[in-house]
Amino acid sequence: MNLKEAIVNRRSIRKFQNREIDDKIIREIIEYAMYAPSAKDEQPWHFIIIKKRETLNLIEKKHPYAKMLKSAPLAIAVCGELKSENQQRYWMLDCSLAIQNLMLGSYEKGLGSVWVSIYPREERVKLLKDILSLPDDIIPLALIPIGYPNEIKKIPQRFKEEKIHLEKF
Amino acid sequence: MNLKEAIVNRRSIRKFQNREIDDKIIREIIEYAMYAPSAKDEQPWHFIIIKKRETLNLIEKKHPYAKMLKSAPLAIAVCGELKSENQQRYWMLDCSLAIQNLMLGSYEKGLGSVWVSIYPREERVKLLKDILSLPDDIIPLALIPIGYPNEIKKIPQRFKEEKIHLEKF
Repeated sequence: MNLKEAIVNRRSIRKFQNREIDDKIIREIIEYAMYAPSAKDEQPWHFIIIKKRETLNLIEKKHPYAKMLKSAPLAIAVCGELKSENQQRYWMLDCSLAIQNLMLGSYEKGLGSVWVSIYPREERVKLLKDILSLPDDIIPLALIPIGYPNEIKKIPQRFKEEKIHLEKF
Repeated sequence: MNLKEAIVNRRSIRKFQNREIDDKIIREIIEYAMYAPSAKDEQPWHFIIIKKRETLNLIEKKHPYAKMLKSAPLAIAVCGELKSENQQRYWMLDCSLAIQNLMLGSYEKGLGSVWVSIYPREERVKLLKDILSLPDDIIPLALIPIGYPNEIKKIPQRFKEEKIHLEKF
């Protein structure tokens, strides 16, 4: 798929078909995520693939905006490692770049995805740390439900001239 | 360009040719950035195109890791807007997604780019706020020097099995 097509046509998808995703495809899109740049190339990310229905349901029940987990065949929790000083400072930015690759890759494979916010909301961070048995220095940034789309969304016009400035604000 | 090619082959470029970039190309890659998803679709980003040699030199002199500005024909300061509560919480994540699109788009156009860290380092945030006349509620996240590459970098192997976990960490 063409880069521009992926970037412009990708939309957040919250309704999924009842259809499994091949493991190989999941690994491929996680590989895309791992090709993001990161501060000092420290690659501070971890990807936890959640497929168990009971785990997805448990998160759905306790997270205020995670209804889409009901129909998602899986979700990937993207977490940051906070070992070095550098990672502590930039992990959430590096992991965000990885997630954009992950979402673009999902779209390329015919899959839909959406960013479900975890960090910096403390209660959501604690929820996922407990459910996923995360060590102290691993922090969940976001949960990305992924599945074959069961909704069609229009492509918006997002270019806004007023967001571009020359030399100064 | 193919999405996978852009994601895997893009590298951080720090040496640039002495060659101007067409304004239309710059607008196109900023448009790619604007197609990133954002929390509640609030699109909290601003893009400041810096071309003046004296401004680029001034930042280069005061930022500890910005030597690449010497050869860059321009840099884009990507800034977040912190008006809503939502923006205050997620602006740096939303802007990071936009920057990944911007860097992939640059690569597609034959351009090199690199993430120069600003936020959360206070002294760098203040430096850019002063130089770019940013209002209080606009915060610089990163500076992205862009130009035609004057270096060739190998593609690394970045896939790491140990970063993938199933169900729990």
